[in-house]
Amino acid sequence: MAQKVTPRILSGFMELLPEEQLVFDRMKQIIANTYESFGFVALDTPVLELSEILLAKAGGETEKQIYRFTKGDTDMCMRFDLTVPLSRYVAQHQNELAFPFRRYQISKSYRGERPQRGRFREFYQADIDIVGSEKLSILYDAEIPSIIYRVLTKLGLKRFHIRMNNRKLLQGFYEHIGLSEQSAEILRIIDKTDKIGEDNVRLCLSDLGINADLITRVLSFAQIKGSVAEVLSQLGALDIDNATYQLGLSELRMVTNALNSMGVPETNFLIDLRITRGLDYYTGTVYETFADDFPSWGSICSGGRYDNLAGFYTDRKLPGVGMSIGLTRFFDVLKAQGLLNMGPKTPASVLVIPMSEKESSLALQIGQILRQDGIKTDVLGSDTKFKNKMVYANKLGVPYVVILGESEMQNQTAVLKDMARGEQQTVALDKLAPAIRLLQNLEPLLPVIKDC
Amino acid sequence: MAQKVTPRILSGFMELLPEEQLVFDRMKQIIANTYESFGFVALDTPVLELSEILLAKAGGETEKQIYRFTKGDTDMCMRFDLTVPLSRYVAQHQNELAFPFRRYQISKSYRGERPQRGRFREFYQADIDIVGSEKLSILYDAEIPSIIYRVLTKLGLKRFHIRMNNRKLLQGFYEHIGLSEQSAEILRIIDKTDKIGEDNVRLCLSDLGINADLITRVLSFAQIKGSVAEVLSQLGALDIDNATYQLGLSELRMVTNALNSMGVPETNFLIDLRITRGLDYYTGTVYETFADDFPSWGSICSGGRYDNLAGFYTDRKLPGVGMSIGLTRFFDVLKAQGLLNMGPKTPASVLVIPMSEKESSLALQIGQILRQDGIKTDVLGSDTKFKNKMVYANKLGVPYVVILGESEMQNQTAVLKDMARGEQQTVALDKLAPAIRLLQNLEPLLPVIKDC
Repeated sequence: MAQKVTPRILSGFMELLPEEQLVFDRMKQIIANTYESFGFVALDTPVLELSEILLAKAGGETEKQIYRFTKGDTDMCMRFDLTVPLSRYVAQHQNELAFPFRRYQISKSYRGERPQRGRFREFYQADIDIVGSEKLSILYDAEIPSIIYRVLTKLGLKRFHIRMNNRKLLQGFYEHIGLSEQSAEILRIIDKTDKIGEDNVRLCLSDLGINADLITRVLSFAQIKGSVAEVLSQLGALDIDNATYQLGLSELRMVTNALNSMGVPETNFLIDLRITRGLDYYTGTVYETFADDFPSWGSICSGGRYDNLAGFYTDRKLPGVGMSIGLTRFFDVLKAQGLLNMGPKTPASVLVIPMSEKESSLALQIGQILRQDGIKTDVLGSDTKFKNKMVYANKLGVPYVVILGESEMQNQTAVLKDMARGEQQTVALDKLAPAIRLLQNLEPLLPVIKDC
Repeated sequence: MAQKVTPRILSGFMELLPEEQLVFDRMKQIIANTYESFGFVALDTPVLELSEILLAKAGGETEKQIYRFTKGDTDMCMRFDLTVPLSRYVAQHQNELAFPFRRYQISKSYRGERPQRGRFREFYQADIDIVGSEKLSILYDAEIPSIIYRVLTKLGLKRFHIRMNNRKLLQGFYEHIGLSEQSAEILRIIDKTDKIGEDNVRLCLSDLGINADLITRVLSFAQIKGSVAEVLSQLGALDIDNATYQLGLSELRMVTNALNSMGVPETNFLIDLRITRGLDYYTGTVYETFADDFPSWGSICSGGRYDNLAGFYTDRKLPGVGMSIGLTRFFDVLKAQGLLNMGPKTPASVLVIPMSEKESSLALQIGQILRQDGIKTDVLGSDTKFKNKMVYANKLGVPYVVILGESEMQNQTAVLKDMARGEQQTVALDKLAPAIRLLQNLEPLLPVIKDC
């Protein structure tokens, strides 16, 4: 064959080697299992949608990044998130669904962003939403952070905080002090406190024409800190006579109480009055989640309560609450910092090696017996030297090797080698599965994420 | 909000309702677990690739169907199969991979075909391949059909046959009778025997200028039938003095022997000399798989041995063997024929229902306790009437419901209802998990596919 094409992928796309992919898939599986344990059903909407559908809401920066094209007469886009397809799905199938409708979707979305570290043009998100018809109990607002807690804990992350706030509380507060029109801008400025310092925040707020007294009030509100009980008590003590504020406060109280009922420890959640999550979509409880030791990662899981999921497609009011894990980005950050417990290049626990052609048939039999015993088993072909076979086993990183030679075949035994320990033993063929299981039990499965 | 956009998807795309999605995902999971039990590692290549890469080989019909577009200066395509991305991946990462390299990929591909029943523009394929460097033992040719057998059996399909042939055998035979140049065309005609009848096949072959004697020879070769041993013995008895033929015959012998070693019963495989699988890619063993009762489905899993996976991207010779399940199409056929064991609209086994606001907190606690015991549990909010809650439980199809009322709360009990049997019992809260497990054990999990 003549001219070769250099094999490569598009820039800004993530592709993993087998040992990385196995860790990524373990993460994905843990997240999916946790979501399902709460009764969420997986959806799998098409990657391509009609542009008319997908762009009903989008605009600005996002719209420019979308992969949009026509084929025949059809104007279509690759999805840029999982929320718009969810809206379309729920509106389209509303008569077939049972509400509250709990769905999760762990899928890829596409945005042609300028490639940079940690930003990908094809990226997994792991979304959950609970969507009600006409109304949805506030208790679901507590379920979401309890799921965040379970997911991150199962992944192995220990030191993290889910930061919660309530948009009604903020709205009521700003109405009360007469700054509701400027609240969006004020909140954006306050959000930068950690970056630019309090003095600069005061300057910026003053530039908006807010007087010094109000600035102090706004800042001291945003800085209310302490245990959940302390913050709730301070918020109550402010004695703000505004119905929206009081509703937000009572929601926050119910949500944090329910989190206690569900066994989420206060070492992993707190009320943070600076959390706002954008300004036009969420209407009640909002969440962000930060690793205590790595604030630079930004929020790992974010979400909140919204009043109406699918207003572009239906008149039926569909309030909901949900959250999303930016899985590709999270994985990339963990990988870059060396925080993943990497394993072998194979899902197999065992590699069966026939010394020569003669033992091939037995090797295939043994492979099938081990598999039927629930042990993932790879059987090697017999067409290379023994030395090469062991090189392969090492490169693969497979935990255990079963070697079948002439004398073993005569005695109906095999050599079982523990590759990590470098120890080997001769085992009767019918005792092979229990012997492997015994070795496996000596090696507890490490969590995906290293201690942090 | 004003004008609504009618929620809908692109034509030719499959989207499932929750109860269907759960069955589809169970199929996908069984396939993935089986592939992994043989040591295959999952890959997840990008959906988008450079056109230069993806179209290095494509052409004709396929190329017209591809979703191709430019963004910025980049000419890109959505993948149309999983084989070309595999070639690119292996060529690109050849120095990091251990050979033989076993990978599976269960992912969507895209072809803008004319929509018709059973053809989808977005479709899942479930591919496995074993790729060697420079050479690959013939034993791997036996592993592939043994995996087909395990997968279909685990899905619940019973009456099917994996039909095998060997391209070297065919090539040698046609060389021997002096028709090797016309063999492609002859095989295509013979393949139509079931449709057009033997007389018409004879006519077509005669139109190619083949004499009656040779036609008889060709047809009687294609029609060799019987048990594997019988066919092998007839093929040997033909005494064809051609090295390629003899190599093909010995490969077929080794593969069928190895299938016996791996416990694949002869009720599920046979040698069929009419199977050819296209004419330029495969070079040795080829497979197709048909359901005995539904020949009209066509082949469910097909594949074979090829000499060189990635000739467009690398000089390194990469022989391999693999197969693919057209999952979306297979699911659609099973669904259309009512052959799927459908279940509830939720993965949850249990729905916890608090009678009123007062029991909400306990309901959340119970939910978490059941989950920690490995029972998937959905907890219902308390903001509707009890009757509506039971309507919801019925619509969801959840197998068990746990009801918490005032008296239950006082006595630390709950009402556990078996929805299918309509039976209920009062259970102490700390005995709830074992009681549910007991009920679950009464209901054996049905296979995905109904008896066929």
